[in-house]
Amino acid sequence: MEVYPKEHLASEKVGRLLAVARGEERADLVLKNARVTDLAGGRLWEADLAIAEGRIAGIGRYSGYREEDLRGAVVCPAFIDGHVHVESSMVSLPDYARAVVPRGTLGVVTDLHEIANVLGMEGIRYMLEVSRGLPLELHVMAPSCVPATPMETSGAVLGVEELEKLRQEGSVIGLGEVMNYPGVVAGEPEVLAKIRTYRGLPVDGHAPGLSGEELNAYVAAGILSDHECVTADEAEEKLARGMYVYVREGSTARNLEALLPTVLSGSPDRFLLVSDDVNPEDLSTRGHLDFLVRRAVELGIEPLRALRMVTVNPARRFGLPDTGELVPGYRADLVVLEDLKGMRVLQVYRAGEKVAQEGENLWVAPRVVRQAPASVHIAWDRIPGIALRAEGRKVRVIGVVPDQIVTESLVEDARVVEGWAVQDPARDLLKICVFERHRGTGNVGIGFVRGFGLREGAMASTVAHDSHNLVVVGASDEEMLFAARVVERMGGGQVVVRGHDILAELPLQVAGLMSTLPLEKVREGVKRLKEAARALGCDLNDPMMALAFMALPVIPSLKITDRGLFDVGSFRHVPVFLSDPGSRADDLAR
Amino acid sequence: MEVYPKEHLASEKVGRLLAVARGEERADLVLKNARVTDLAGGRLWEADLAIAEGRIAGIGRYSGYREEDLRGAVVCPAFIDGHVHVESSMVSLPDYARAVVPRGTLGVVTDLHEIANVLGMEGIRYMLEVSRGLPLELHVMAPSCVPATPMETSGAVLGVEELEKLRQEGSVIGLGEVMNYPGVVAGEPEVLAKIRTYRGLPVDGHAPGLSGEELNAYVAAGILSDHECVTADEAEEKLARGMYVYVREGSTARNLEALLPTVLSGSPDRFLLVSDDVNPEDLSTRGHLDFLVRRAVELGIEPLRALRMVTVNPARRFGLPDTGELVPGYRADLVVLEDLKGMRVLQVYRAGEKVAQEGENLWVAPRVVRQAPASVHIAWDRIPGIALRAEGRKVRVIGVVPDQIVTESLVEDARVVEGWAVQDPARDLLKICVFERHRGTGNVGIGFVRGFGLREGAMASTVAHDSHNLVVVGASDEEMLFAARVVERMGGGQVVVRGHDILAELPLQVAGLMSTLPLEKVREGVKRLKEAARALGCDLNDPMMALAFMALPVIPSLKITDRGLFDVGSFRHVPVFLSDPGSRADDLAR
Repeated sequence: MEVYPKEHLASEKVGRLLAVARGEERADLVLKNARVTDLAGGRLWEADLAIAEGRIAGIGRYSGYREEDLRGAVVCPAFIDGHVHVESSMVSLPDYARAVVPRGTLGVVTDLHEIANVLGMEGIRYMLEVSRGLPLELHVMAPSCVPATPMETSGAVLGVEELEKLRQEGSVIGLGEVMNYPGVVAGEPEVLAKIRTYRGLPVDGHAPGLSGEELNAYVAAGILSDHECVTADEAEEKLARGMYVYVREGSTARNLEALLPTVLSGSPDRFLLVSDDVNPEDLSTRGHLDFLVRRAVELGIEPLRALRMVTVNPARRFGLPDTGELVPGYRADLVVLEDLKGMRVLQVYRAGEKVAQEGENLWVAPRVVRQAPASVHIAWDRIPGIALRAEGRKVRVIGVVPDQIVTESLVEDARVVEGWAVQDPARDLLKICVFERHRGTGNVGIGFVRGFGLREGAMASTVAHDSHNLVVVGASDEEMLFAARVVERMGGGQVVVRGHDILAELPLQVAGLMSTLPLEKVREGVKRLKEAARALGCDLNDPMMALAFMALPVIPSLKITDRGLFDVGSFRHVPVFLSDPGSRADDLAR
Repeated sequence: MEVYPKEHLASEKVGRLLAVARGEERADLVLKNARVTDLAGGRLWEADLAIAEGRIAGIGRYSGYREEDLRGAVVCPAFIDGHVHVESSMVSLPDYARAVVPRGTLGVVTDLHEIANVLGMEGIRYMLEVSRGLPLELHVMAPSCVPATPMETSGAVLGVEELEKLRQEGSVIGLGEVMNYPGVVAGEPEVLAKIRTYRGLPVDGHAPGLSGEELNAYVAAGILSDHECVTADEAEEKLARGMYVYVREGSTARNLEALLPTVLSGSPDRFLLVSDDVNPEDLSTRGHLDFLVRRAVELGIEPLRALRMVTVNPARRFGLPDTGELVPGYRADLVVLEDLKGMRVLQVYRAGEKVAQEGENLWVAPRVVRQAPASVHIAWDRIPGIALRAEGRKVRVIGVVPDQIVTESLVEDARVVEGWAVQDPARDLLKICVFERHRGTGNVGIGFVRGFGLREGAMASTVAHDSHNLVVVGASDEEMLFAARVVERMGGGQVVVRGHDILAELPLQVAGLMSTLPLEKVREGVKRLKEAARALGCDLNDPMMALAFMALPVIPSLKITDRGLFDVGSFRHVPVFLSDPGSRADDLAR
């Protein structure tokens, strides 16, 4: 028996449900004196809400074996996050659930893009398995872009065949954000075939800044949502083209305020409020969708309209049955709010069982039997080292832009010592390496970076979008190699070292992305890493986050993958050294 | 090859569609200088609409092999009627299409309840077959209530097994209005099993006046729509319980004005505007959904909101793919309106082909090879006659209520001649008979009726809700039998006779419900029938309509089926004669 039923009610139980609805039998539980949200009618009804067989039996006047007097508190449907990468929380799924369930979230639509890039189908199945028995329902979108680009080595490839298989297994509800929007617009057969495989199911978009004819083409391919709008005009155009607009308000990208005019004027059924990526700090201190809804209301969105964006709208958009509204026969997944202003979550019910009260979880996660598969496989014997023989006087340097995931493409004089191009911390010229960690290829990309500001020591991370190889930045090769070894030994994670001292570390044994520690411990770990980096001279707001995006070759300008420096503008790998002016070699490489 | 493609675009054609969308190839057709409706954003965009491969390629600035300058006319999605019994039009499907397509309707959701009561699965398959190649798309809901009641003999029985089969064949999109609402509320296993068979697909409701706990039970059974609301309060409650509210504005039931407050205040995605039943007169003179939308706007509903109720809302409610909105990649099913005020339909496009202009059809229906199966089977040899031996002095009499489908239950002195209870036209006491016409059982129900007012002659009809047996009313047995014979000879239809003269007749060879004549001819036929009845003394507004509802045993008070008089209040058959006061026989029969 499933602890939290996903299926339709067994026929023998429907009879009792109807008898309770008719008022002829007592309910299992009645929430008395509630103000019941009516999201379609746009009002509150003062009524009791009766629950039987884990379902909503009726709204009206009822009595039950158990009764809970809500004293005028508001009952609304449990929250569903329509677009979130749960891996960004850096905690395992049970701990993620512990964090979000008391906030009212009982469903997340997640495309597991991160873990799939590391562990492929195995990663998706692992997450589904771990989700069993949790009060948080995992609605998985098949990751459409694994690997994100062919310019790097990922842990897995999900082609049309694998995506077809996932659909047939019934383990996914749609196709996750199709980030290869240039490919879609251009009509590349591979990506169109993936979309075709998911016809009839939701296919999510990712089309930053796409407009006009290109947007028409993207939509014509069958993609009817987007969560990348950053201006009201952009949202207005996408809405007009038939797209659901997922308003993103995460830890990094926050678009709610900018999109407000469109949200207020557009049809209330077409907007979702999603978190996309939330880091442990925000998850712990701000909360989850409760925070987003509160913020929406503060910005002037009518409370029931705001609630729609995290309840009925995602439920309908993704075809989630029997959920998202307070409807007799639907699963009794409920949130009790103090009022519609503060949106403070008092109680949370899953299938009629109270799972949280005043921020405290009332459920116990099933013991997780299955461990995540090992995910760090580095073939040291195939790696000669990370020293760089000087092949010119000028080097390309990745220029970190604080608080942005874009970088600049700089050119600097190399510091050459005995024929080797080496770090020059005095000029903030550090070395950055990406070790391929999935397949033991021995690939390592080596380059220079400015902006981390480490005067000494090194930082390493297996969180490195999107292929999540092992990325290391440091003031010396020795410290960088040490940091890499430490992370390897942890089975994935993040570390800051100086000499041979580990200043701070956060093991992320689940695919090198998520910890097995509780959220609070992870949050502390993240904080220690930050402080350690700061002590070494790094004044970035989030050094590890910055590091994690150095390897993302779809975001301008200069990035690095396990195959070397990558110039996003020309969309090709480039050598570290610029040849002398007029040299043919460099021209060719361009 | 399908003339009007239902399927997704073939992959080789997607490439061209995207090239057109990108503006790199010319479109097949461009509607230039349009005002394009944006139903989600609630505004019009001045733009061109490009069409390629039968699909919308893009909205913006485009050029095409063909171009049509719309000079600022409004383009909106083609209309879809979310709830209609096409049989009520009394014309065959091609002629129905000829009537509604120039009005902008290219899709109808219909549960074929009427023809299914006559011909069962065969009738549904026949209609689907006849619909092929028409620009009007037939979305069939499986009739849930065939027969409507066990108190009469219908032409077919659709049990759980048959309904399951229809679902598996893929010929239906959901379960049609579940009229047996007392059964649903009470939790009768048979009707719950039917609903269960259609879980995951739309299940339509029919719950007149249902409220409170009973409504909770009805919804909890899994029924999330209703088209029977007659007051705003009723609509408001049903909306709050999660139901889609289909606002009905047909020939008989007209609820739009009454429901206006709820339509205006509720969420704009939850309302449909449907015709339910439209007679040939209204269809011909008023139109179809164009008339309803115009009326909605006159009543104060914002035009784009009104248009949603016949486009995107039905498309989403019923999960109809690639239709209902102006979205790149969707089928180019379009209506060009002069403006948003008059809602006059200038042009209609189906899959990018113009199918109507200024009220004229530009398409030719495929030759219908298949004839409807014969549907009138009366076993005269098993029918001794329709004379009634007087078994008492008082008779029960059905009292017609003008313009209503309810009747009164009257008691009158019988006119007895030579031991027989006979008609007494002077007192407007006519005889009414229902001949079982489907299976040759020889069943005939005989009773008396007041209200038709025929001084002489008889009227007969094979349209007789819901089992559509042959119903006859008349001033003499001879004329009644003659009328019945005439209808039988026509293969079904309606007739008014006097003596052995046929005063007016309308053959309805398709299941005894629909003609094979064009709409205008049917309309004239209906008019002649009316005039003929009037000439015989009947002053009802619509005598044939009144006759057709005499046999509907679910509407109070006294009705008649092929098994005799039926008292709806006690829900049982009753004898024609009241026994003398104190007689035991009559008490027992009650």
